[in-house]
Amino acid sequence: MLRTHTCGELSLGHVNQDVVLCGWVQRVRDKGGMIWLDLRDRYGITQLLFEEGKTPANVLETARSLGREFVISAKGAVIERLAKNDKIATGDIEIRVAELTILNPAKLPPFLIEDETDGGDDIRMKYRYLDLRRNVVRKNLQLRHQVARYTRAYLDNLNFIEVETPVLIKSTPEGARDFVVPSRMNPGEFYALPQSPQTFKQLLMVAGFDRYYQIVKCFRDEDLRADRQPEFTQIDCEMSFVTQEDVLNTFEGMIRELFSKVKGIDLPEVPRVTYADAMRLYGSDKPDTRFEMQFVELKGDDRDLTSGKGFGVFDDAGLVVGINASGCAGYTRKQVDELTDWIKRPQIGAKGLVYVRYNADGSIKSSVDKFYSEEELKKWVEAFDAKPGDLLLILSGQGDKTRKQLNELRLEIGSRLGLRNPDEYRALWVIDFPLLEFGEEENRWFAMHHPFTSPKPEDVDLLDKNLGQVRANAYDMVINGVEVGGGSVRIFEKELQRKMFEILGFSAEEAQEQFGFLMNAFEFGAPPHAGIAFGFDRLCSIFGGADSIRDFIAFPKNNSGRDVMIDSPSAISDAQLKELAIKVAETAQ
Amino acid sequence: MLRTHTCGELSLGHVNQDVVLCGWVQRVRDKGGMIWLDLRDRYGITQLLFEEGKTPANVLETARSLGREFVISAKGAVIERLAKNDKIATGDIEIRVAELTILNPAKLPPFLIEDETDGGDDIRMKYRYLDLRRNVVRKNLQLRHQVARYTRAYLDNLNFIEVETPVLIKSTPEGARDFVVPSRMNPGEFYALPQSPQTFKQLLMVAGFDRYYQIVKCFRDEDLRADRQPEFTQIDCEMSFVTQEDVLNTFEGMIRELFSKVKGIDLPEVPRVTYADAMRLYGSDKPDTRFEMQFVELKGDDRDLTSGKGFGVFDDAGLVVGINASGCAGYTRKQVDELTDWIKRPQIGAKGLVYVRYNADGSIKSSVDKFYSEEELKKWVEAFDAKPGDLLLILSGQGDKTRKQLNELRLEIGSRLGLRNPDEYRALWVIDFPLLEFGEEENRWFAMHHPFTSPKPEDVDLLDKNLGQVRANAYDMVINGVEVGGGSVRIFEKELQRKMFEILGFSAEEAQEQFGFLMNAFEFGAPPHAGIAFGFDRLCSIFGGADSIRDFIAFPKNNSGRDVMIDSPSAISDAQLKELAIKVAETAQ
Repeated sequence: MLRTHTCGELSLGHVNQDVVLCGWVQRVRDKGGMIWLDLRDRYGITQLLFEEGKTPANVLETARSLGREFVISAKGAVIERLAKNDKIATGDIEIRVAELTILNPAKLPPFLIEDETDGGDDIRMKYRYLDLRRNVVRKNLQLRHQVARYTRAYLDNLNFIEVETPVLIKSTPEGARDFVVPSRMNPGEFYALPQSPQTFKQLLMVAGFDRYYQIVKCFRDEDLRADRQPEFTQIDCEMSFVTQEDVLNTFEGMIRELFSKVKGIDLPEVPRVTYADAMRLYGSDKPDTRFEMQFVELKGDDRDLTSGKGFGVFDDAGLVVGINASGCAGYTRKQVDELTDWIKRPQIGAKGLVYVRYNADGSIKSSVDKFYSEEELKKWVEAFDAKPGDLLLILSGQGDKTRKQLNELRLEIGSRLGLRNPDEYRALWVIDFPLLEFGEEENRWFAMHHPFTSPKPEDVDLLDKNLGQVRANAYDMVINGVEVGGGSVRIFEKELQRKMFEILGFSAEEAQEQFGFLMNAFEFGAPPHAGIAFGFDRLCSIFGGADSIRDFIAFPKNNSGRDVMIDSPSAISDAQLKELAIKVAETAQ
Repeated sequence: MLRTHTCGELSLGHVNQDVVLCGWVQRVRDKGGMIWLDLRDRYGITQLLFEEGKTPANVLETARSLGREFVISAKGAVIERLAKNDKIATGDIEIRVAELTILNPAKLPPFLIEDETDGGDDIRMKYRYLDLRRNVVRKNLQLRHQVARYTRAYLDNLNFIEVETPVLIKSTPEGARDFVVPSRMNPGEFYALPQSPQTFKQLLMVAGFDRYYQIVKCFRDEDLRADRQPEFTQIDCEMSFVTQEDVLNTFEGMIRELFSKVKGIDLPEVPRVTYADAMRLYGSDKPDTRFEMQFVELKGDDRDLTSGKGFGVFDDAGLVVGINASGCAGYTRKQVDELTDWIKRPQIGAKGLVYVRYNADGSIKSSVDKFYSEEELKKWVEAFDAKPGDLLLILSGQGDKTRKQLNELRLEIGSRLGLRNPDEYRALWVIDFPLLEFGEEENRWFAMHHPFTSPKPEDVDLLDKNLGQVRANAYDMVINGVEVGGGSVRIFEKELQRKMFEILGFSAEEAQEQFGFLMNAFEFGAPPHAGIAFGFDRLCSIFGGADSIRDFIAFPKNNSGRDVMIDSPSAISDAQLKELAIKVAETAQ
């Protein structure tokens, strides 16, 4: 090795030892004939000392020629430091340098290699290898490695086998857009990159593998957002001879183990809520349950505390629903108006906001005092189980739309009240998803999860009666309002799978052509099976307390799907195109 | 869970317990009112017992309706078995079945799901999910999982970080053919799938990650052979601030650890041989060192024991070289003739074979007695250090070609003499590879390893004088004659890298366009670094004692790059082509 130690391991126990360290020049202070140099590597920072009169002249000269990010090798004796530095692990010692070698000089980096950098997003993406030098970024990837390690350890221990499934597979019409790969050996034909190893993991169950997992790259050619990447990583799992209950328990165990090992947090048991309840109580299938603030309906299926008092907005609404912003009765008129403007923005699109102030003195003041008596408003306050000092915020309109708007308002109020602490974690299982959802535009039914998801046995009859009411044995895990994983019990009988494709508008021929291999496999003894997949990038970002998954990917792509560091994608040669038997369309030339 | 136990865990300790097992029907014997059923899952086989008079009639009836590979659930009591079966772990017990459920019936499989199957390659590939049910195949993949686990454990323990590098990267002209992926968001442009994460792992070193690894899919669009797949898996590694010696020691340690953990074998220290010596002594840069049988030159650089005696073939040859087939003096004339025919086949192409029999009685008989006296042949025998009973097999001709032919002969003789025992393992480092090799056809120099490999410091001067003589700090690990891994110390200085591209025929612009990001990175403080990659599929096949890597890949492709199970690649829709701004060339339609 070119070094005897790393920059993170020397302490008082090493004093008087001769050592060789290698690393990058983080900082140099040259003052009064003394030079202090912070030498950095992945493991830490160690201070090098040079002193006029004591350090050889040529070494001093070399030291004075160093710039930031030079790569050097320094040999010298470990000595006790006079001014200790508590902030770093090696703060008790420094190295009196006797020999110094420049292994590679460095141009001045285009931004500061510090935790707080002056580089913008674009420049840091272009010089990603420099951005990765920053502790904060490197630590994200070290965290990612730890999450993967503990995930594997947990699953290995439960007899799961990691099996690699192919990356060059077949394009299928269902789901998101595929990336495709022209085949040179089969001209005119294409592979597709997998959106998930779904069918392969099911085939592994048919093959009797019993418990499978894989931490695996998947690909979706979708328009990108901040939290989406064309290639992403999944923790992909499948089990045989299990019920939904077994899958929930197994993977709740995994998530709790990860919280314990990675964060040192003892995550409580993960509560379960049905999709229907999640929508009713939070207006979202991924509610943030770090805080309660559940929806209360003033007018809905169960009751009507608002109609017939002359307030047309509520009279015409299918749903009148609100939240209790507890302790906010003191909000000024300005604050409430500002909230009203916020919720009327086009992104949310509410028509207006009704408030009821339950003042600390017990009096009630609302924006609809004109229509409702204090007596009537008291009933509202009771419905909300509100206490003096609370503020009720109420929306009305068509059911689904209003719930979605109120979900936004709930999250906003939660944030304003500091109820969404990034260091606090609440996980939740959302279960009993609808099997199907109707695409108005396409005028057909779509699988809400995917076409391999099993209806709940008690709902199978509804497949012939009311498709919208069929519930699936499907489940999502939500942490702090973010969907981190989801899965389902699978169909394992050919006839039901055939019927499912029929419902989704496949002709018998199309179904056979696209998924015949799976339906055929079901005829040779397929076991009952179920599975789940976690978004690994997202999970890491949750553990790391960051919003963007990009911070947890070594070499991410930008919103146009470009890697600006290597400048990809790019044109390829005519010879390559010819060999692959494809042409670039004129429109793109 | 649908079961209380697996089919591999019940023993006498469970007698009298009520259990539920799930699995596949392996075999049914129905005789004299008794039915014995072997129930199989991944974990083993358990015998189920049904008995007329004791077993409920409906259960008996169901049992009699079962066929091979039906998936069933059976509930009953564990009882001690009268006739124990030593061959299976559960051989002391059986289950007296009280309840029996058919979870899924099965059609008769197209081939036997047994260790010895009657299915040919094609049918087993098409029904790969059935082939994977066979113990022998499934165990290969379980072994693969174990190799991955121990690899990760070893590297994690040495502070290597697993970092995922991108799959959608940039096409580069050097090396094998790329698979490409048209970009919808960047019409007319393409990603490429990585042949290896080479440049990314080097950038991770520039980023200060110090020690990186990844078990990662790589892609090469090459014409396929039995041991090649378009997608394959690598153990990819890189280290900073190290010399070649450190890499060899680190990964020799890994391989020895794997042998110890996976095979229970204490692999001896791995010897090293230079490329030059490997070619001289074995005629191959991946010699099988399970047996000696090194080449002996009768005419070469150091001596000439053959010229001037009237044997024109040897007189005209640049090299006369042979091996000692120890103990084979008893080979009949027919056997030697057959060997001669074997080596004259077009695949090998030798002109002929000269033999020298050193008989047990000390007499010498050769096929060139006409030209060489016993005295002269004695000298040959001495050169080979042969003993009575040995047989010398000698080839002659142009140096490189003759060595390659003799390598084939050496391996063949080794096989015939039983010296290539698949249960015996000999690893070897081959070092000091040439940096460059000349492509006669293209009339230019190619990097023997890749363009990022560093010349040996003492040979750098030769870059301006004699390119063919420059040795690289490159190394391969060879086990039993198979190259399982290779790597090199990398260039980390921009100027040397630039020069290397120049030697390889890149213009300055081309080098900058293709690899500018890496050369630029070298200007910002790149550390000295080196790395290695192991062929993971190949390594697993070595541990599994099989010749083909296909047996260690869950869903391999055939020699035309097709997955015959899912029927991929396939045509894609016109809509997809249009969205991707590409067309299929007329020639392929």
